[in-house]
Amino acid sequence: MRDHAASGPELPHPDRAGIDLSQVLFALSDPGRRAMVRQLQDGPLEAAACTPAGTDLPKATKSHMLKVLREAGVIRNLPNPQRRGRILTLRRDDLEARFPGLIDAVLSADSPSAGG
Amino acid sequence: MRDHAASGPELPHPDRAGIDLSQVLFALSDPGRRAMVRQLQDGPLEAAACTPAGTDLPKATKSHMLKVLREAGVIRNLPNPQRRGRILTLRRDDLEARFPGLIDAVLSADSPSAGG
Repeated sequence: MRDHAASGPELPHPDRAGIDLSQVLFALSDPGRRAMVRQLQDGPLEAAACTPAGTDLPKATKSHMLKVLREAGVIRNLPNPQRRGRILTLRRDDLEARFPGLIDAVLSADSPSAGG
Repeated sequence: MRDHAASGPELPHPDRAGIDLSQVLFALSDPGRRAMVRQLQDGPLEAAACTPAGTDLPKATKSHMLKVLREAGVIRNLPNPQRRGRILTLRRDDLEARFPGLIDAVLSADSPSAGG
């Protein structure tokens, strides 16, 4: 039996068809939230390791950023099945299926090598 | 001499390098604002002809939507050189240069034929 107390509750996520463009664009309109998404480009991360700036952000602020991203369907935030903590995953396949090219355009626009 | 009173003031626009991704994504995160942008896909329009829903939106609401889009660098809003009124133009080249693929991804994600 899984220990829910250790890894926290199951949180609601929209299914693929329920991902809304306005919510996705809004979620990605914040540089801190985009920074977290960029950290998930190469694969899932423990929530504790995913931070907008590596600095001492208030815990409530980070929780809110994760909530906006999760509710928009940009990330999954699931209990870690192996141990305490939570695992964040970029929903790249779902986003690409719904809005082809969008997430890559946003992430590459923001990359350090992007023109500007 | 141009009649400024007839067509309204020159309004500030960011130059290409000053277009900010966060502002663009925020501007595009509203369905009404996106509807106006979609109407500009095929070319400039008189401001009076560009409406979010074709309905009787309060004038102040529409003005604010145009302001958000203009200040983000998504559209130009210039006095009509020929007569009274203003001309709206989608800054597609500027957006494409700054954030390749982004504006097309957003506009095609929203099109009636898009999956979902």
